[in-house]
Amino acid sequence: MRLHWLKRRILGTPLPTAQSRHERLDKTTALAVFASDALSSVAYATEEILLVLVLAGTAALSYSLPIGLAISALIAIVVSSYRQTIGAYPQGGGAYIVTKDNLGLYPALVAAAALLIDYVLTVAVSVAAGVAAVTSAFPFLFRYRVLLSVAAVVLIAIANLRGIRESGKIFAAPTYLFIVSVFSLVMYGAAGALFDFLPEAPYGPHPPGLEGVGLFLVLRAFAAGCTALTGVEAVSDGVPAFKAPEAYNARIVLLSLGAILITLFLGITYLGYDFGITPKVDETVLSQLARRVFGTGMLYYEVQVVTMLILLLAANTSFADFPRLSFFLARDRFIPRQFGNQGDRLVFSNGILILGGVAALLLVIFKGDTHRLIPLYAVGVFISFTLSQASMVRRWFRLRTSKWGWRAAVNAVGAIVTGVVMLTIAATKFSHGAWIVIVLIPTLVMIFMAVHRHYDEVARQLSVDEFAPGPPLRNTVLVLVGDIHRGVIYAIQFAQSLSPNAKAVYVETDPERTRRLEEKWGKWGMGCPLIVLSSPYRSLLGPLLDYVDHLLAQDDKQIVTVVLPEFIPARWWQHLLHNQTALLIKGALLFHKRVVVTDVPYHLKR
Amino acid sequence: MRLHWLKRRILGTPLPTAQSRHERLDKTTALAVFASDALSSVAYATEEILLVLVLAGTAALSYSLPIGLAISALIAIVVSSYRQTIGAYPQGGGAYIVTKDNLGLYPALVAAAALLIDYVLTVAVSVAAGVAAVTSAFPFLFRYRVLLSVAAVVLIAIANLRGIRESGKIFAAPTYLFIVSVFSLVMYGAAGALFDFLPEAPYGPHPPGLEGVGLFLVLRAFAAGCTALTGVEAVSDGVPAFKAPEAYNARIVLLSLGAILITLFLGITYLGYDFGITPKVDETVLSQLARRVFGTGMLYYEVQVVTMLILLLAANTSFADFPRLSFFLARDRFIPRQFGNQGDRLVFSNGILILGGVAALLLVIFKGDTHRLIPLYAVGVFISFTLSQASMVRRWFRLRTSKWGWRAAVNAVGAIVTGVVMLTIAATKFSHGAWIVIVLIPTLVMIFMAVHRHYDEVARQLSVDEFAPGPPLRNTVLVLVGDIHRGVIYAIQFAQSLSPNAKAVYVETDPERTRRLEEKWGKWGMGCPLIVLSSPYRSLLGPLLDYVDHLLAQDDKQIVTVVLPEFIPARWWQHLLHNQTALLIKGALLFHKRVVVTDVPYHLKR
Repeated sequence: MRLHWLKRRILGTPLPTAQSRHERLDKTTALAVFASDALSSVAYATEEILLVLVLAGTAALSYSLPIGLAISALIAIVVSSYRQTIGAYPQGGGAYIVTKDNLGLYPALVAAAALLIDYVLTVAVSVAAGVAAVTSAFPFLFRYRVLLSVAAVVLIAIANLRGIRESGKIFAAPTYLFIVSVFSLVMYGAAGALFDFLPEAPYGPHPPGLEGVGLFLVLRAFAAGCTALTGVEAVSDGVPAFKAPEAYNARIVLLSLGAILITLFLGITYLGYDFGITPKVDETVLSQLARRVFGTGMLYYEVQVVTMLILLLAANTSFADFPRLSFFLARDRFIPRQFGNQGDRLVFSNGILILGGVAALLLVIFKGDTHRLIPLYAVGVFISFTLSQASMVRRWFRLRTSKWGWRAAVNAVGAIVTGVVMLTIAATKFSHGAWIVIVLIPTLVMIFMAVHRHYDEVARQLSVDEFAPGPPLRNTVLVLVGDIHRGVIYAIQFAQSLSPNAKAVYVETDPERTRRLEEKWGKWGMGCPLIVLSSPYRSLLGPLLDYVDHLLAQDDKQIVTVVLPEFIPARWWQHLLHNQTALLIKGALLFHKRVVVTDVPYHLKR
Repeated sequence: MRLHWLKRRILGTPLPTAQSRHERLDKTTALAVFASDALSSVAYATEEILLVLVLAGTAALSYSLPIGLAISALIAIVVSSYRQTIGAYPQGGGAYIVTKDNLGLYPALVAAAALLIDYVLTVAVSVAAGVAAVTSAFPFLFRYRVLLSVAAVVLIAIANLRGIRESGKIFAAPTYLFIVSVFSLVMYGAAGALFDFLPEAPYGPHPPGLEGVGLFLVLRAFAAGCTALTGVEAVSDGVPAFKAPEAYNARIVLLSLGAILITLFLGITYLGYDFGITPKVDETVLSQLARRVFGTGMLYYEVQVVTMLILLLAANTSFADFPRLSFFLARDRFIPRQFGNQGDRLVFSNGILILGGVAALLLVIFKGDTHRLIPLYAVGVFISFTLSQASMVRRWFRLRTSKWGWRAAVNAVGAIVTGVVMLTIAATKFSHGAWIVIVLIPTLVMIFMAVHRHYDEVARQLSVDEFAPGPPLRNTVLVLVGDIHRGVIYAIQFAQSLSPNAKAVYVETDPERTRRLEEKWGKWGMGCPLIVLSSPYRSLLGPLLDYVDHLLAQDDKQIVTVVLPEFIPARWWQHLLHNQTALLIKGALLFHKRVVVTDVPYHLKR
């Protein structure tokens, strides 16, 4: 009862089904809702590129510019591809659905596994990066980063368990503030570098371009930067949330998102190069940039706080996406059906709990360090990009709607490019953690299949097709008694209310006690016959099971109901003071066919 | 099923009740069985004295001689006292029973609490000291001492869970070997010191007797040495185990025990003084002595191994004493009655498990260090000595049998002396850990009383005195259905076998599903009426509870049986794939009066 009260305080009162309806978003709000995941990655993508390049010395950092340009081109390609998905799947085109529709079940399950992993990592990476934004500004918090990260995940999870009704409002302010802040940072920084009005000298002399940075390292840096693309697909998943005309508005929003993403990402990358920023353990590149451009004042802190907020919003989007995908998978019977249940706040509580739990665990294992989580991150995203775009190609070839050749070409470019990037990421980050994801995806697919087979088998075994109910059952009701007390008398009355032939069964361990019981039976037995079973090994169960088996052997329509008198103490600790015999008997009889066990609780007062 | 197999492998097959009979011990075996606890304490008692004295400098160590003599006198007094208990309680005179018999309930509960704590500490201290004997001989094991201690406790516990049938045989060899070994050590050492034939020079010049050792320190050293007395009471507890004439034989054994104990303890203390032994962290005093006397050869190792064995036997005795006292307390309803149950190997498994668990925990907390456990140890022992002897005084005054005056005087001296020692120990060791025991004893007594009140209250509420069973109950059987499948059909047949008026209840969350169910009902419902309850909040429980309450409100002899169709997967992991709705419903209805919930299991094949 206490627990129930606590649950209500944290999660709020239940909501009626009728309240379940969709909020439709206008373009401005939709951009805020769907952009946070994609845009937030500019907070760490540049830094990840620099962290790889710095391995070849600070001079190698200048490679960040061409890599940044390549990634921008990739963003443009992916955005073009997904604009077509929006048109084709106005009801929402997540990779699982699109792939199942066009490439079939197995590729779809691969996409689903990749996405589930990806959502977990989005939470972990975004929260770690959000906390890094805060600890960059307040270094004394640095050593509490794991704690802060886990606390953030818990808070986001609770907010989602309550059900966030006002999502549009929550998203708009931080997302637009982030866009404006980072844009201002880039513009003011670039101007300041040009006209030299910054608080500090903008940069030292540029190191000369250098030879000798290996291709592998450049590819690894490129792979690291590809995290900038995570979240771009969100718009195409959420088309039904837009105001009409849905597809048209979604396409405009996706295009704007792409443009803003490229601008901010390239701006930060250029400025980082121009200011000769080197990645540090305890301060993010974005924080270093903001400090250099704005000085350590109000504007600097504003950038850090807004960065943290957009990253937490990005984490929050996974709390909508993961349970939704889980719902589809549960509906299709690939994961336990509990993921298909809406809780009393109309949210899919189990998905939220699993996502929050695993993300928190990852944050603890990887010590809340963004850089250690990143190598696991992008593989899953690019697998789902590739499958989703390949599905679109297949679709155009199949449906051959107007301009299908051109559309297929756009998606084919998308599929090929994202596929190559996926292989690049897997190869260059394999030993840094990507292997975990590469092992995990087929494992998850196998689990999906095993679960599916089980549900199919259960459905087959329970199916009423070609099944005829047998003749009525014959039921023998037994009351297991150990003594005579009010609880036992109540249980006998209960048994007699179900069957006039109910019998009491007593397992004898000590003949003296049997004699005393039989004496009392005359007065309290209420006409119920008493059967005494002897037990040389003091076991209660053995003789009872033998007797039950003996009854069952008489007739295959015979079933046996064993009634257990049980008294229920008034306080929880008092349970410790009583034998858990009933539990034991239930456990032992659970696997016996044609036997049903019934507790008859007798309630004590205090 | 696997677990069951493992249990059988570890614990052996069940034993029939008929096999429960007492092994009677002759005097030689009895000395071995009851002496190990008392004698084993000479392995650490001298060392504990020296450890306190050394705080005042090595010169203060010579105070060990007078302290050793005082403790020997104390042993003689306690032995004389307990010889009288043997005569008076031939059926076994443990402190709890003797005190309850003479001083009443509360003092007896104090004695019981002190004893329970004492048994736990006997295990912890003996095992720690036994491991110290081994690590003294094999220093590379020193850093694994906590692990070794816990492993020893686990092994002893398992041996006791199996039931040690051959106890006499196990005890005899190590106990007598220990007596002979330590006696030889003392004699050979003393002779060697006198005639100077030892491998090393026997001692440096004795430091002069010194002034300035405070009284408090001497008392503390005395208190520390009093651990030598632990276990002396064992003989009087176990009189019924002796061959006839029981009391006579027991008295002889106790006298011999006292003589041997004094000899060995004084011998070690004298030799330690004579050889100028100073206590070390990683080698026991007994080990240092043996090394000095015998050199580090076969004889030295023999002493260490035998010391370890007798200490493990001492620990083992608590595994008989603790469950036996628990049984008495459970029988008198002061602790949960589970402690009164004999397991299928005829031992009191719960007592053994609790004792082993708490002792292992203590060893971990106190890092397997004998010296840190000792201050907790002796308080409880002396509380039970005092109460036991005071009870005897009371008894002599009450019964006034022959020579009662003299007997009362002997026990009065025993009670007063042990009482004063108890206060001395409590005062001098209070801040070193004795406070824990002093807080714990009244806490345990309060728990005993609370448990007792609960059992009394339950007995009162369940009592059939002044109780008349009401008129027969009227039972409405409901089957909760969510769908139609073979499991549901089986449950309906089950319900119909109990009541021709059984009804099916369906909670509607979606009218479309209700329509489909009703369609199927005609074919599969077997004439069972279907009641549809609507649920605006998707809750299964709310509408069900309302309906049940509505039925119950009609008549106070009405009860409701809720039948839950449940299918049982063939493998354990498959349970995770199904809703635990049945569990939820049972939990919610458990606290509803006049409602009985019955699962009807339908077994799946794979």
